[in-house]
Amino acid sequence: MKGIHLITNGKLTEKELQDLPFLQHDVDYIHIREKSKTAQEIQTIVSFLLEKGVPKQKLIINDRVDIAAINNCHGVQLAYHSLPVDVVKGTFPELSIGKSVHSLEEAVHAEKAGANFIIYGHIFHSLSKKGLSPQGISRLQEITQSVSIPVVAIGGITPENAQAVLKAGASGIAVMSGVWNAADPLEILKQYQSVFNNGEGGRH
Amino acid sequence: MKGIHLITNGKLTEKELQDLPFLQHDVDYIHIREKSKTAQEIQTIVSFLLEKGVPKQKLIINDRVDIAAINNCHGVQLAYHSLPVDVVKGTFPELSIGKSVHSLEEAVHAEKAGANFIIYGHIFHSLSKKGLSPQGISRLQEITQSVSIPVVAIGGITPENAQAVLKAGASGIAVMSGVWNAADPLEILKQYQSVFNNGEGGRH
Repeated sequence: MKGIHLITNGKLTEKELQDLPFLQHDVDYIHIREKSKTAQEIQTIVSFLLEKGVPKQKLIINDRVDIAAINNCHGVQLAYHSLPVDVVKGTFPELSIGKSVHSLEEAVHAEKAGANFIIYGHIFHSLSKKGLSPQGISRLQEITQSVSIPVVAIGGITPENAQAVLKAGASGIAVMSGVWNAADPLEILKQYQSVFNNGEGGRH
Repeated sequence: MKGIHLITNGKLTEKELQDLPFLQHDVDYIHIREKSKTAQEIQTIVSFLLEKGVPKQKLIINDRVDIAAINNCHGVQLAYHSLPVDVVKGTFPELSIGKSVHSLEEAVHAEKAGANFIIYGHIFHSLSKKGLSPQGISRLQEITQSVSIPVVAIGGITPENAQAVLKAGASGIAVMSGVWNAADPLEILKQYQSVFNNGEGGRH
């Protein structure tokens, strides 16, 4: 789970989809997180990416375990409204299961239930979580010290603050609006990458 | 696929859910069709029904192949916005796959793609398809004569017109508002049942 997780913005446009096969070289994982799209639409997105050479091992599907399994993707990302981790684990042991958590208690519970990694946030103030108070670096550190599975940090992470996130024990960083809203997404991704390359890097 | 398919109304209440374990004895299949509910909510419904003794072989899940697979349900019902039949078939050969179709062309295509049965409609004017013109009995007959997989008819089917539907070659009938809106759902189901018991019955 080490590295950069690029998460789709929930309203992926045709233009953004066309860009993904180019951006994929500079990220470690792509999360297809398009809650308002139908299964058919998400399957079309995944098929397009696979045809364009995106490795299936880079793809993580939000919520839809069936789509992850059908395409032999790396894994599935489960939210509070998704199927329970242990239930998914039992039927789909080949999938890497990520769980989105927002507290230490949820993080510990996810690990016990069999999650392969967690996404924890939001760490900093972020455009997509306006008005909600962020978790901050010290809580992130508490989480990374309390679970042995990789922690991917999400929320307001910039190339500038990413080093502090990795120092707090995060294995990966999840990026969304910072990349999608950028004039040059590739340039931003290279800035994130340099943090991993120059810094001490994540744990796993 | 012979018999009565009771389909949830998309806004299943707690009261209706509590009734299902009693109604199940008088139906052959229960379709959980709750598009606006989350995966977690649908899983909770399925777990409840299984705990209350509803046989998993009576349960068909709409759209969510993962939930059908996890619970070893009879099958999954796919709509136009769902994952494609052939793709689901390849990964989940143990599931019975139903496809919802609205024309002869779609019916033939579904059979070729590997569907185990189709739901075709709407046959008569129905509360849930207001303003759309119904397919009618003769088109239903054309479909049942053109495919070899079972055809379940849906839409405005009453205990009074059900015999004509079976005579047109339908294996099963799908019921929704006629049952859920009834003052006594069990009484209505018994009326549907008597059509199967007294009449010539469906094909499969």
